[in-house]
Amino acid sequence: MEITIDRGSREPIYQQIARQVRDLITTGKLPAGFRLPPERRLAQALGVSRSTVLIAYQELRADALIDAHVGRGTMVTPSEGTPERTEVEQELPWRQIFGAAASGFQDPLVGDLLRLTERAGAIPLSFGMPAPELLPFAELRELITGVLDDTGPAALLHSPTEGLTVLRTTLAQMMAARGVSCTPDEVLVLSGSQQGLDLAARIFLDPGDAVVVEQPSFIGALQTFRGARARLIGVPTDEHGMRTDVLESVLSRFRPKLIYTLPTFQNPSGTVLTLERRQHLLALSRRYQVPILEDDPYSELRYEGDPVPSLRALDPAGNVLYLSTFSKLLFPGMRLGFLIAPRAVLRQFALARQTADLHSNTLGQWVLDRFMQGGRMSAHMRVVRHAYRRRRDAMDAALRKAAVPGLGWQRPQGGFYFWCRLPAGVRPAALLARAAEAGVSYLPGRACFADEPPTEFIRLNFSYPDEDQIREGVARLAAAIRQETGHPDTTELQAASTRPIV
Amino acid sequence: MEITIDRGSREPIYQQIARQVRDLITTGKLPAGFRLPPERRLAQALGVSRSTVLIAYQELRADALIDAHVGRGTMVTPSEGTPERTEVEQELPWRQIFGAAASGFQDPLVGDLLRLTERAGAIPLSFGMPAPELLPFAELRELITGVLDDTGPAALLHSPTEGLTVLRTTLAQMMAARGVSCTPDEVLVLSGSQQGLDLAARIFLDPGDAVVVEQPSFIGALQTFRGARARLIGVPTDEHGMRTDVLESVLSRFRPKLIYTLPTFQNPSGTVLTLERRQHLLALSRRYQVPILEDDPYSELRYEGDPVPSLRALDPAGNVLYLSTFSKLLFPGMRLGFLIAPRAVLRQFALARQTADLHSNTLGQWVLDRFMQGGRMSAHMRVVRHAYRRRRDAMDAALRKAAVPGLGWQRPQGGFYFWCRLPAGVRPAALLARAAEAGVSYLPGRACFADEPPTEFIRLNFSYPDEDQIREGVARLAAAIRQETGHPDTTELQAASTRPIV
Repeated sequence: MEITIDRGSREPIYQQIARQVRDLITTGKLPAGFRLPPERRLAQALGVSRSTVLIAYQELRADALIDAHVGRGTMVTPSEGTPERTEVEQELPWRQIFGAAASGFQDPLVGDLLRLTERAGAIPLSFGMPAPELLPFAELRELITGVLDDTGPAALLHSPTEGLTVLRTTLAQMMAARGVSCTPDEVLVLSGSQQGLDLAARIFLDPGDAVVVEQPSFIGALQTFRGARARLIGVPTDEHGMRTDVLESVLSRFRPKLIYTLPTFQNPSGTVLTLERRQHLLALSRRYQVPILEDDPYSELRYEGDPVPSLRALDPAGNVLYLSTFSKLLFPGMRLGFLIAPRAVLRQFALARQTADLHSNTLGQWVLDRFMQGGRMSAHMRVVRHAYRRRRDAMDAALRKAAVPGLGWQRPQGGFYFWCRLPAGVRPAALLARAAEAGVSYLPGRACFADEPPTEFIRLNFSYPDEDQIREGVARLAAAIRQETGHPDTTELQAASTRPIV
Repeated sequence: MEITIDRGSREPIYQQIARQVRDLITTGKLPAGFRLPPERRLAQALGVSRSTVLIAYQELRADALIDAHVGRGTMVTPSEGTPERTEVEQELPWRQIFGAAASGFQDPLVGDLLRLTERAGAIPLSFGMPAPELLPFAELRELITGVLDDTGPAALLHSPTEGLTVLRTTLAQMMAARGVSCTPDEVLVLSGSQQGLDLAARIFLDPGDAVVVEQPSFIGALQTFRGARARLIGVPTDEHGMRTDVLESVLSRFRPKLIYTLPTFQNPSGTVLTLERRQHLLALSRRYQVPILEDDPYSELRYEGDPVPSLRALDPAGNVLYLSTFSKLLFPGMRLGFLIAPRAVLRQFALARQTADLHSNTLGQWVLDRFMQGGRMSAHMRVVRHAYRRRRDAMDAALRKAAVPGLGWQRPQGGFYFWCRLPAGVRPAALLARAAEAGVSYLPGRACFADEPPTEFIRLNFSYPDEDQIREGVARLAAAIRQETGHPDTTELQAASTRPIV
């Protein structure tokens, strides 16, 4: 494979690589099934960084010219109509055997991000995870052994699909403190809130059904709804959350099955839906008879200002399905979240869930229940709120200090994220490569949009890195952005707006 | 609600109740939304057993005349075209909002069985669970604290979607001992093998796609495939497992997407597919290019005779997806199973799984890995094999001792179940009621069939009850069967063959 790099060219290096490989493939010089050199090796051979090759390969993958196979490397994709021939044993044509739904599960973004950040010394501002060092490990360890001593083998045996009754009762009590009135049998324990999204999609959405999402919205939800082959209808947002004035015309026009919203400290935008808009949203839900799926992982992580009631707290008619999780507050590895829903809906979730994973792991449920008893959760929340407020302030200060011309952001009152608008002229793919090279990662904003993604947003996380990492990460990122704005390239800018990064 | 019981009548009491309630509903005397008295109260009022009322309600529910709402009791279903009216707040018409897939998740059988056995003193022969008292609890407790001490918070944090690398490596080693050659990156850790069935259905099956299942087969798989709205094509079995001679015509006629099989100690029949048939099945899979989903929860639970290689061990072409679990061998509450599949398939499973529950609980994976290291698993397997062999023999002896005329069974060489053929003339619904009343439960065989279910089979479990319970449970059941055969009723027999029990 012959590739030449012209360092004097205005064409970015990753594009030079992608262009030449593309030519080799389309002219048949690299046949279907040809194994491309591993990124690291090609990078060494060409004297460029590994992330430059990674971005080039991503471009080629987005064009379906190459395909990555775990453990076997990256290979040239067979073109339509010319099936791959092998002399040895013929593998089944898996892609043809897969159902239509399988094509919905194709977004390798998360995996690519993890690869970008696996370089030693890279500062991850891309995740959505709590700080590992704030986990109340000693307490949890004590609770785990305490539960085992008290319950005996029962903690390792089957438990009800809906969740342990003790935990459902405790969760109903916790929700009362959040202003929500519900009974334990309206609570369903989940293996993380992602499972709630998944079950909701399976219960409500047939292929082609419309579902309303905010623009931008949570990637995991977009992936799930796409996996269900639903039609995603994006409603714009501003600094006060979803534009409910736009929602009304969407509801009358598309008759969606579900309105999906993160009203409080939205992921990724960090905004809070105002009380007026909450009332408006609920009124529209009632008028058009469309249920609301309220995703609320972050509302307990408020660092200033007064709480706003959840949609579920404001909803007497039972139109709101309320989803939350302990992955952001306590221990993501235990996979525990919960749903609050009217009994008829909860029963349907439980039936679907019997065929999914039967129930959540029993030991984790016992431990969570004990942790919430006796004030441990409140004490823990005080600790993390304090630490995250400092981290948020550190990120805000670092962004101010960097003073990148044209870079915009709002300091969020809670949650995990800064949502930043890049200066005009920054090429998203090139910035990602530069940032990776500089040792900092972020989430490209376009992944958070249902359609026609704007390219100028990025999401920065401040919960996972500590204050020093935040300062250093923002400084590295600011330098990368400055370099990029110093090299505007209108050709690339246009290309990027029609070609996905991943 | 006026109901009269005629104890002199040949019509069984549960039918008298069902018939009279049916008349009250169809004549409009009980309107839609009318709440029927709780089973216990009606039973007291009529002076009959609670299970008699339960069976009557099941009949009415099967006819869609009534519907059970968790927490609100059993109510008369609105008839088509006359929507339920309520003066107070209007609940959303959830059933209309649910997608088509929701109708696939409706089988309340498992819940009903649990209700039947929740009576104090009832002996459950209906489950498919390991013996709680054989769980190596002290060792597991020690391992859990050991893992926490060694890993620190990491055991409570996120882990890869495919599973911890250490565990995948250990599982690949374990499979080598089972005669299967695979690499760690061909292993996907699952939240129980039920999740593997679920993901397989989502990846392979579009609505209307055909999937081959054995007749009889595992209820959880049938429910999952029905939930995916697949077309279940049943292939008959005999004492040597699936009739592969019949399979060939099925494959050419229906072009199924998947062949689902439990070749070793099948659930529910206990049979083992012969080596010749295994080879035949694999040859057919290759010829018709249909992948095989091999479900293997029980092969390690062999009590006599020589092991037969798994399909995966015999398959060099990579047509077999191999599914197994630790819920039958070790601790069902941790929800851990695994899949072995070609990399292209594994990647698709992992992508689908990212939208389902992200990953299996991290602590459980660490504990399982440690347990398998250092010979603990082999020692544990020796203990449970010994105990289950004794229980199997106890059940065999109890069935012989009872000597119920016309009752047929085969003593299984391994696994968890006896599959029994009832004497001619036994009415399945009536037997279930009698058994519940006598304080013993079992799994009605018809739940295990894809279509045209025969009514004369029942499944008895010998792993969960101890030897005394097995003896007492079989004696109670035998008495119930004798009572039933003493009262043949041809009318009921015909009715039962067209009306489902649940």
